[in-house]
Amino acid sequence: MQVRELGEQGLLPYLQSFCPPGVVGDDAALLTPTPGQSLVVTTDMLVSGVHFSDQTTSPEDVGWRGAAANLSDLAAMGATPLGLVIALGLPGELELEWVQRLYQGLAECLQHYATVLVGGDICRSSQVTLGITALGQVEPTQAIQRHIAQPGDAIVATGVHGASRAGLELLLQPAWGGSLSAQERHELIRAHQRPRPRFDVVRWLRCYCSELHLPQLRVAGMDSSDGLADAVLQICRASKVGARLYQPQLPIPKPLTRLVELGELKLAQARDWLLYGGEDFELVLCLDPVAAQALVSNLPGAAVVGEVVSGQDVLLVTETGELPLSLTQGFQHFSSSAQS
Amino acid sequence: MQVRELGEQGLLPYLQSFCPPGVVGDDAALLTPTPGQSLVVTTDMLVSGVHFSDQTTSPEDVGWRGAAANLSDLAAMGATPLGLVIALGLPGELELEWVQRLYQGLAECLQHYATVLVGGDICRSSQVTLGITALGQVEPTQAIQRHIAQPGDAIVATGVHGASRAGLELLLQPAWGGSLSAQERHELIRAHQRPRPRFDVVRWLRCYCSELHLPQLRVAGMDSSDGLADAVLQICRASKVGARLYQPQLPIPKPLTRLVELGELKLAQARDWLLYGGEDFELVLCLDPVAAQALVSNLPGAAVVGEVVSGQDVLLVTETGELPLSLTQGFQHFSSSAQS
Repeated sequence: MQVRELGEQGLLPYLQSFCPPGVVGDDAALLTPTPGQSLVVTTDMLVSGVHFSDQTTSPEDVGWRGAAANLSDLAAMGATPLGLVIALGLPGELELEWVQRLYQGLAECLQHYATVLVGGDICRSSQVTLGITALGQVEPTQAIQRHIAQPGDAIVATGVHGASRAGLELLLQPAWGGSLSAQERHELIRAHQRPRPRFDVVRWLRCYCSELHLPQLRVAGMDSSDGLADAVLQICRASKVGARLYQPQLPIPKPLTRLVELGELKLAQARDWLLYGGEDFELVLCLDPVAAQALVSNLPGAAVVGEVVSGQDVLLVTETGELPLSLTQGFQHFSSSAQS
Repeated sequence: MQVRELGEQGLLPYLQSFCPPGVVGDDAALLTPTPGQSLVVTTDMLVSGVHFSDQTTSPEDVGWRGAAANLSDLAAMGATPLGLVIALGLPGELELEWVQRLYQGLAECLQHYATVLVGGDICRSSQVTLGITALGQVEPTQAIQRHIAQPGDAIVATGVHGASRAGLELLLQPAWGGSLSAQERHELIRAHQRPRPRFDVVRWLRCYCSELHLPQLRVAGMDSSDGLADAVLQICRASKVGARLYQPQLPIPKPLTRLVELGELKLAQARDWLLYGGEDFELVLCLDPVAAQALVSNLPGAAVVGEVVSGQDVLLVTETGELPLSLTQGFQHFSSSAQS
């Protein structure tokens, strides 16, 4: 059955069944934030053909990724989720099954991170379009922000980078990466299709403060949705500081290291995916080196990748010298090559 | 200049200039709700060619209407606004000026209702698409909801209905309504292009409670964005009650009454616009008849239009008999005629 045949009034009750009882049915949803906490809000628009395609992403994965990308922005603020709303633009000829599967993936992600869908809107559109807004809350003193990095901070990446980009390559060119095991292929593709917002890192930071009786731990940071290099550059720009990243310390997925050793992947390509690939949805955090060391020793895949310095240069230190990092290689909407 | 030439990174700083200083620049915005208040959240998607067209709506009006429609949902919950986020899908060939004018209209509306833009997202899309989410807050005991109407309640419409639909007619067919004065034409068109969310009504209800030392005033209701008839029917369905609307009491715009008297507009057409035209963004409230009378006597254009009764019949009482109201004449997305 097509969306058009069912109509808006027919589709709404089905979609509302994904919300908790009693939450929808009014002009807006009512939520109960914890008194004294700051409210955190982030919004994203995802468009078919720009952000996802049937070739690389099932409807369930579109739902999961859409939810995960927004939840990752909450985690990047040190927040815990309160709920999510979704506005959907749908072509009339779209199969109803596609929408059902989208919502199943979305609901699966929300359930995994103990949060809920609290409202939405549907309308007609020539391209499938998702407008997602996520709401969270954070103790005001525990908010992670970009502008509070200081020289001397260690820079932590909470996991490997480049896996999502390698997974996309496998989806676009299945013949690529012939030496990868089935398990490795699966894991790289999974990194692209099912990114995981790092609320576990947020929880770890809170426990660390609480166990050490720290009244506050200053953590600057953001997520690496637009790439590791982009995150470091954005934090440095907002904090008016520079940074040095040490290439040997950058956490690269093991299968990619192996492909480089086998000569199936050029080192420059692997480095490019790691720094600029994007969509790994890890956190890039700048914090006290002692806390940073404690964090990475408790977090598989995490690494101290560099340090914040004064000045404004953001440099990648390699065996052969220093390279300035630049934003221009990152994903840009509206440019002619902006298809991912 | 086209949006494509400027690119996402070029456009973002310009759009961020519409946000208050310090609010944007992180993965999400931080807001400070009043402790103890419920959080209210509503989202809408607006698509060029479906919800607005260059023929009837300037970019400024698209911005104003988009903001106003979402703010109206907050007013319909009895809430005051905390802020609004907007995700924008834009064709690369769109003129930058169009986006600037859109934001000007949006900002004008937000300023008028003492609230702010707190974040957004932009991406490429084949149709101009706005995903707007508005956030507000309300004292939990003062929330207006659809399911709390009771038999004996008076039904109030906070202003005239049909004006927005008549304004749209004037935009689509400028030759129509020849007997209207320039001022009347302007006011009807304005009703369509610049709807006003009724936060003044929300304030009045709070003052009324406070002056009479009422701990609580039960008010059921919603806004009339999808038409007066739709609002009454939705409230009755949610509250499991019926209603009687008295046609002579329905507040019709004066210019339309005059056109009917002159024979330039059929009575049936005027009644249709009043009940089903939609987009007047008034509030339809069910409350104690004494409070209702006090409200309408303080609110120009407002009227007690009927009463809530037991049972499930929703009837329009005319001079010649009783007619059941139905939803089927309202605006439906995905149907073949769903173009407004």
